[in-house]
Formats: sequence, structure tokens, C-alpha cells
Amino acid sequence: MDVAALRHKSDSIYSFCLNEKEAEIRLLTKKDDDILKVELIYNDKYSFHECVKSLLMPKICSDDIYDYYVLRIELKDKRFAYVFRITQLDGKQFYFSESGVNESYDIKKGYYDFFQISFANKSDIIPINDRLVNRCFYQIFVDRFYKDNDNNNPRINIRWGDKIDRNTLAGGTLKGIEQKLDYLCSLGIDAIYLTPIFKSYSNHKYDTIDYYTVSRDFGDETSLKSLIEEMHKRGMIILLDGVFNHVSDDFFAFDDVKNNGEKSIYFDWFFIEGHKIDMVRKNYETFASCINLPRLNLNNEQVQDYIIEVGLHYAKLFHIDGFRLDVSDEIPHAFWIRFRRAMQAVNPHFILLGENWHNAHAYLNSGQEFDSIMNYAFTKEVLNYVAYQKYDARTFKNRIISNLFRYKTNVNYNLLNLLSSHDVDRFFNETKHDVDLYLIGYALLYIYIGVPCLYYGDEIGLDGGYDPYNRACFNWDEKTWDKKINENIIKLIHIHNHEMINSLQFKIDEHHGLLRIIRENEKKRIVLYVNLSNRVHNIALNGEILIANNYQFHKLLNKGFIMMKEVKNHEED
Amino acid sequence: MDVAALRHKSDSIYSFCLNEKEAEIRLLTKKDDDILKVELIYNDKYSFHECVKSLLMPKICSDDIYDYYVLRIELKDKRFAYVFRITQLDGKQFYFSESGVNESYDIKKGYYDFFQISFANKSDIIPINDRLVNRCFYQIFVDRFYKDNDNNNPRINIRWGDKIDRNTLAGGTLKGIEQKLDYLCSLGIDAIYLTPIFKSYSNHKYDTIDYYTVSRDFGDETSLKSLIEEMHKRGMIILLDGVFNHVSDDFFAFDDVKNNGEKSIYFDWFFIEGHKIDMVRKNYETFASCINLPRLNLNNEQVQDYIIEVGLHYAKLFHIDGFRLDVSDEIPHAFWIRFRRAMQAVNPHFILLGENWHNAHAYLNSGQEFDSIMNYAFTKEVLNYVAYQKYDARTFKNRIISNLFRYKTNVNYNLLNLLSSHDVDRFFNETKHDVDLYLIGYALLYIYIGVPCLYYGDEIGLDGGYDPYNRACFNWDEKTWDKKINENIIKLIHIHNHEMINSLQFKIDEHHGLLRIIRENEKKRIVLYVNLSNRVHNIALNGEILIANNYQFHKLLNKGFIMMKEVKNHEED
Repeated sequence: MDVAALRHKSDSIYSFCLNEKEAEIRLLTKKDDDILKVELIYNDKYSFHECVKSLLMPKICSDDIYDYYVLRIELKDKRFAYVFRITQLDGKQFYFSESGVNESYDIKKGYYDFFQISFANKSDIIPINDRLVNRCFYQIFVDRFYKDNDNNNPRINIRWGDKIDRNTLAGGTLKGIEQKLDYLCSLGIDAIYLTPIFKSYSNHKYDTIDYYTVSRDFGDETSLKSLIEEMHKRGMIILLDGVFNHVSDDFFAFDDVKNNGEKSIYFDWFFIEGHKIDMVRKNYETFASCINLPRLNLNNEQVQDYIIEVGLHYAKLFHIDGFRLDVSDEIPHAFWIRFRRAMQAVNPHFILLGENWHNAHAYLNSGQEFDSIMNYAFTKEVLNYVAYQKYDARTFKNRIISNLFRYKTNVNYNLLNLLSSHDVDRFFNETKHDVDLYLIGYALLYIYIGVPCLYYGDEIGLDGGYDPYNRACFNWDEKTWDKKINENIIKLIHIHNHEMINSLQFKIDEHHGLLRIIRENEKKRIVLYVNLSNRVHNIALNGEILIANNYQFHKLLNKGFIMMKEVKNHEED
Repeated sequence: MDVAALRHKSDSIYSFCLNEKEAEIRLLTKKDDDILKVELIYNDKYSFHECVKSLLMPKICSDDIYDYYVLRIELKDKRFAYVFRITQLDGKQFYFSESGVNESYDIKKGYYDFFQISFANKSDIIPINDRLVNRCFYQIFVDRFYKDNDNNNPRINIRWGDKIDRNTLAGGTLKGIEQKLDYLCSLGIDAIYLTPIFKSYSNHKYDTIDYYTVSRDFGDETSLKSLIEEMHKRGMIILLDGVFNHVSDDFFAFDDVKNNGEKSIYFDWFFIEGHKIDMVRKNYETFASCINLPRLNLNNEQVQDYIIEVGLHYAKLFHIDGFRLDVSDEIPHAFWIRFRRAMQAVNPHFILLGENWHNAHAYLNSGQEFDSIMNYAFTKEVLNYVAYQKYDARTFKNRIISNLFRYKTNVNYNLLNLLSSHDVDRFFNETKHDVDLYLIGYALLYIYIGVPCLYYGDEIGLDGGYDPYNRACFNWDEKTWDKKINENIIKLIHIHNHEMINSLQFKIDEHHGLLRIIRENEKKRIVLYVNLSNRVHNIALNGEILIANNYQFHKLLNKGFIMMKEVKNHEED
């Protein structure tokens, strides 16, 4: 047995409660190690020294590096102690505890080094956020979605649909979005995340001048309230973009520091080297190296208080359902803990969605910070597998399994999965406009664990590379839409919603060279097969076919997928 | 290379800031793997996609399972991105990033999957607690330390020094402790942790009836204030035992629930099944299975607020320096985060010391909960190595290294190391009264990283097995003291204090069959050799000998140790 490969510790992604009555225990061993079986040796914590029980740990999946043993166990007592007994193929047994791997284990002294669920405390258990899961999100770059007819803003500098650049103001508004809510509902969308809408001179509004004013380019406080009311009437939820990492250099506090240097009461709101601001030398911290985006010092409790008030303002007065949090991984954990607590005092289901591109374990697995992140790790795997075809099905499966084990189970249900956004090339661009590949990507998005997010225009095949081209004006002339894309994406959203995809178990494997994803419960089974190999595959279909792309009879062609549904307990082969 | 053995992730024990200017990066590989070198490929986060630099990662130590590569790096920018390049002995190179181990790495797309210090935020950096380190602690079980002459408490039920049982009240008091402060100072002690002192009927006071009253068995609020003032005058600090997990069944809130059942406003302060308390069926959560110790529901914010007020009372009005926190691992993280924030608002150096027997990574490594825990993992390793001799020097060294890598570096300096307490057999009992073994244990304690804690009486060879025998009355008749123990422990405390042990680097290894611990800086080097083998070892000594046990000339006998000091930059061999 490869002891160096073993992965487990208490109070971590390897050991946590799903609810107050049930725990999940995970153990990783080296893939295909000489292991006959793994047993959980356990009891209530205060009975452990007297006697122990045992249960077989099932191996539920593997990637190329690890075998994953996962057991869900009902907690008879809220305090649960355990060690692992690992039996090798040669019959040798080892005990794995906090003291490592040993040939014997003294349960009488177990209180020193057993693993444990120390107490199943409700406030430490991460719930699936009911307000978030089972929704289909739509991200809107406000300036480019829909310009209401009354918009006579003199700052608009192109005709709707003309070529854009970084300085374009096209005229999209909150009222425009409100006018298109029925369109979004017809797609099956029931949640919107808006890029920033607060006062700022840019088209993207990531350079906030005033958190308390809606940008007049987009509307005003009344139009925001109206939009939110109309959304809530339709059962939709809304996330605003919380850009708290940095502000515009015209933000009042930075202005004050520009004028008064060290004497300003806002001097410590920023990270400034020296006694006054020097914009030429850029002697202050900024977003990236953007001289006009000074970074707020959220280590300072005054600044924390200020931003918390901003959050409360929109939670209390506008009833927003949550924030997407810009550059969230550069902001202190200490702030996020306070921010979550404050927001959830107003609304216990208030959603905090981080913009964390990287492994966000430290923001998600404690349950004290975010519910969710923008799951760019998923984006990247789909790009590599579908768009760039750097991966085969097996590698994709392996990478997906590895990603799922970054987080506690309930966290995975909350993650926002996406293929396009204002920060990356549109997925259509990444697939070089190959509709078949494009739809394979979206089939993966809508069958995956978590919350799918469609970037405005992706449903009609809107194209565009990196900023600013991924922010083109939505083309409302239906004749220009890619019908195949549009119909299939609407079907996929329908499947996600109608089948309550996240109520079903998730499995991923490689099946005769095809990628296969299964979502199932005792009643039904939704299966996605993807073929990116050069071979034509014959698939035995015995279910009701829900959606098919490049599907001819029972053959699954290269660049094709089939998604089907089987109803269980029927006559089957 | 054994990919399954590789251990690293961002924002974890493998990657953290030591201060705002310096980060520590750790990578674990399988022990003696076919690795030629490990390099850190890095740059500022927003320059990473353009170009990268590289640095060799030094292998600083090994146990039997892993090699530990650790690099400290100065942060030129607060945002730091990196991946590892691992070169095998056969020349093959691999890149290790959040996407796992691959033969190549596209730095242009690194923003998806590099490892990172996302931003060196001050409020997320765990400091070495200056109020805590470089101190020598003394734990006092109050009823058994010293009975002041004025104590006429009628509840006292034995003569001082008579045999104790679980119901003994011997008469030790706070005033008694105050009278012995000079004694403690003469030992070199400068910090005291008291077992509980609040109103309760028992001798141990772990069953709190009133958090706001000092037990009249021990004194009153005036004697507590006087003790603390006298300690602070002497530069000593004091921790009280915060027993917040459970209360006495005579606690006012539980009383109210006993009387009023579900109608009590305190019903949700506890974990009760059903509509009223049934003490026969024990239909409520307790400490262990103790019917008279109902568990407080610290998931309830009202209860959190109540206990926070208790903490603030003693922090503000009595100026205590911190709390030792009883059964801390069964209390929600959500509470500890609030408790820490509240206490540190009064005193930024307020010490929170958890009673966590197990790997406490989730309480320590975030920097949001405890500074320290009672390091029973260390106790256990010393028991196995010294008292039970289940381990050889090499295994002890391996276990110590493994334990040190549970936590971020600064955390290790804050941990409270101990060999005896009111909750375990005294170490003298564990060594079967072998003075040589006993002193070896204490030599290890005082040279180890962190804060040593002496249990009252261990300095005179007070004996006792498990509760109640580990709580015997201190014998103030010096003629009864074990002189060798006493003299050596005083010397060890002196070395710890005089040499500022925690200002020195720590190394542990096995050296010709002996255990060797080195603490050193550029000016001096303190070395401890321990011999528990059956062979006599010849040690070449060229330093000033500070302390020696069973030391004859240059021979180190079985059950012996030598601790010596070398002053550097002198004439040496």
C-alpha cells in the first residue's frame, strides 16, 4: 500500500456532515493499490474506547491517480469517532488514524488520535442553498442586452449592433432587461446575474464612483426596484455584481486622499506607500496594474463597515437575492465572514457567489464565507475536452472527479457553472463556430452538478473573442439567430428544469470510448453520451430520447451527443 | 514520481504568508522518490502570463513517508502566482498546478490554474502571539495547590495532603495562589492557567452554576482581582478556564427549562428532544453522558451573545489575558469566530487556547478562531517514545515532523505543549517513577517549539494516575521533594527563558541512533541528545554544558540526555 497517497483528515473535505443526522466520510488511496478492502471502524465518540463497530467503505469512483472510497453514515450520536482498517490483497491489515498507518491500534487510547466528527453542529453544516440550486442563470452585460425605446442618453456613442470597442456605450438599460423578462422566462431562465450597475463612467461599471447610485446610463433606483419586483413576481431571482475589491479613482474617499494626503480620514482606506498619492509612480495598490482602480483596504474595519452598509442597503431596500463578488479571492477572509453574517441576518438564503477562478476551498468549505463561486475550473475542463480536444473522455472524466473532490458535497450543488462570460472568449468563439462542439459543451453544462449559467446571447450563437468582443450587442432580429443552437439550448434548459437535474445522483465515466454522464434516482435515469473520438459508435438506446445532436438511428457520430431519459421499473432490456 | 503522494494547495498549510512581505511554500513528495530537483516557477500574479522566474525549492526534512520541500520567499507584490517544476532523476520534467501533474504548462492560460497567494492581506495572516510565546506556563488545579491560612470553609472535607477522592474539597484558594506567586517566579514561571473558578458545587468546577460569580470555595471577585493584579505586577499572565460547552443542571437557564419545559424562553439554549426535560431518559445533549452537565446550544445566537458577554466581563473588568477553552472542538466554529472577534476588540493579544486533543487544523489555520491548543499530540509522542518506549528515535522524529506540518509555521510557535494535566495520568506515573525518563520528557518539552506548560507539582515529582489521583494536594514540605527532579526542571525552565528558545530555529533528527534536537541562530546553538537505546554512546562535546542527566564524561548512557550550548564564531573543532 502506498501510504504517502492516503488522504484523510477530520473536519475537512474528507469528513463532514451533510445534515445534523448524516456524515460523509471520504478516503483516497492510490489508484489500483494492493487493497482488498477498506473498513470504517467507528462508534459514538464517548463509547469508542469500549468497543467499535465496522462498515465496509465502498469505492465509488477513480481517476488516474486515486481510488475514492466514500461512505455516508447516519449519526446515532452527534459525536462520532472512527479510524480506517485497510486490508491488503496479501491479507495484511493496517489501521489509519491521526497517528498515521500502523499495524495495530489501541482503541483504549483512541481519544488521542481517532478521526472524528467532533459534534454535528448545525451552524457548521453547509446546506445546499435552496434559493440557488435548481435554477438556470443568465448573465447580462447590461449595456449590451436591450436598449429600451425611451433611452435618449446622449452618452450613447454607437448604433445598436455596430462594432464595439472598449469605449462603446451602446445603451442597454435595466428597463430594457425588464422588457425582456418574458423572453428570458420563455427560455426557462429563472435567475439573472447582472454585471455592475452602480455609478461609473465606463460601460462595464467595474470602476465604482458611488455604490449608492444606479448609473444613469442604465436607469435609476426606481427602474432597479421595478426590475426586481417584476422578476420576483415571475419567481426569478437577481444577483448584483458586488465590486468591493477596488473603486474608481473618483470615488469620494480616494478623492479626499488625493486632496488631503495623510491628513485625510480615508488615508487608511487604501494601501498607500508614503504620505500622499502619486498617480504617476502609482504608489498605491490597485486592481491588476490599473492606475484608475485603487484597491480598498478591507483589512480596515471601517472600510468593512462601509461595504457591509452598502450590502445591507441593497438587501433591505431593494430585496436583491445576492451578490456576485468581483475579485473575491483578493479580499480578506475576515471581511467575507463578517459580510456573510450581516447579509444572512437580513435574508438567511442571501446568496454570496465569489469570482474565484482557482480552487476556492478556503472560501467554500468552512461554510462561513461564500455559497458558491463561478466555476471556471469546469469551464477550463470543457474547453480542453470539447473545444481544444486536448483531452480524451477519460482525462475529462478524471479531471471532473478531481474537481468534485475539492469541495464538500453540498458545495458542489451550489457552484455556478459557465462556458462564457464577459471575462473570457465566448464558447462559440472557442469552438471556432462549430455548432456541434458548441452544443456538446452546453449539454455538459446542463447535465452537470450545480447551477448552469448562460451568458447573454450564447443562446442565439452570438460570437466574440476576448474583451471587448465578448460584449457585443444582443441581436434581437430572430432571423439572424442560429436556429439549431437556439432550439437545442432551450431544450437543454427545459431538461434541466423539468427533470430537476440536481435532485438526481451524478455519475461520470468513460464507456466504450465515449464520455457518459448519468443522473438518476430510483425512478428515472438521464444519460448523456458524448462522442469526440474519430469512430462511429453504436449505442443501444432503450429510453425515451429527449434531445439528440448529430444523431442518426443508433449511431453516435464524432462531434455528436445523445441525451436520453429512461423511466425505471418499466419493461427494459 | 509518485503523483498520488504530492501535496500542495493554495491558501492552506502548504501556502501562506508569514507576514505581509514573506510567504512560505511547502510541497510534499514521496520520501526518496526519483526526484532530482523541485523548482518554484513564479511571478507576480498579473505578470505571470508574460514571463516567469524560477527558484530551487530546498528539501528541509523527511519522515518515513514524505520529503518536505519548503521555501520562504519575499513578496515583491502582494499577489503571487506559481507552479512547481519537478525534474526526475531521468531528466523528465513535470509541471504541478491546480490542473495536476502535466508534461507541459501553458503560462499564458495560467490564470485558470496556477497556485497563488491571492493577496497578502494582513487580517488573514496568523501572527505569533507575542503575549504567549517565550513564556513558561504553569497549570493549577485550584483546590489542590495552596490553602491560605485564613481558609475556614466548612465544606473542606480532608486534611491537606490526605488521600483524595472525587468528592474531596481540600481548600486551595486564589489567595493561596497569590501567596505562592513568588515561589512560581522563582521557578521561572511567567504564565498561569487555572482550572475553572466559577460558582459550582464540585471541586473541579467544570459544572458551572454561575459564570458571573467566583466560587466561594476559592475566594471571591476581590481575591480574583487581587491575584490578577499581583500577577501583572510581576509580568505574569493568566488564563481562566472557559467552560462554555456545558453547564451544571443547576444553571439558571436549565433550571427554568426544568420548570417550564417548552414554554421556557431558554428551551432553545439546550438540545432537547421532546417538550420537556426528562433527566431519567436523558433526552438532552450533555457533556459525554453526564446527566448533570447539559450541553449549551452554541448554534443559537442568543446563547452565543450570552457567553460572549461572560467573556467580555472577565476581559474588561478583570483584565484576564485569555481563556483556555474546555471541550472546544464540540462547539461550533461559527461561535468561536464571533468570540475571538469580540475578545480581540478588547485586547488584540487576548489568548484563545482550545482544548483540542486532535488535529485542530480547522480551528488554528484560518487565524479566525484559536491562537493555540493544548498540544496533546506532542504529549502522546513523548509518551510513546520516552515512557512506553514503543518508538525509537527515528519514529519519534518522524512523528514530530508530521505533527509540525499539520499547522502553519506561526501556529506551531503558539501551541501549548504539556506532559501532564488534570485530564491524563501524571507523566511521573506514566514513566513508572523513573526519574531519568521523566527528565528526558521534560528536556524535550522545554526545547520544543512552542509554549511549555508544567502541571502543578510536576516540578517536585508529585505523583498520580488518572482522575482523581492526578489532582493530589501539592506538598509544601520541601523535604519530601525529589531534589533531582526539582533542580533539573528549574534549570530547563531557565534555559528556555534565558536562551529565548523560540527565537531559535528548530531541527530534529536521528544522529547515530540518538535523538537530536537543535535550536540555533547565527550566534548560538542549543543541542539536546537523548539516548534511549541499549548502547552507550560517545558524544563529542565542544560546547558549554548547560545541563546533563546521567552524564559521565563524554558517554551518554541509556535513559540519559545531554543538553548543551555552543557559542558560534568561537574557536571550534
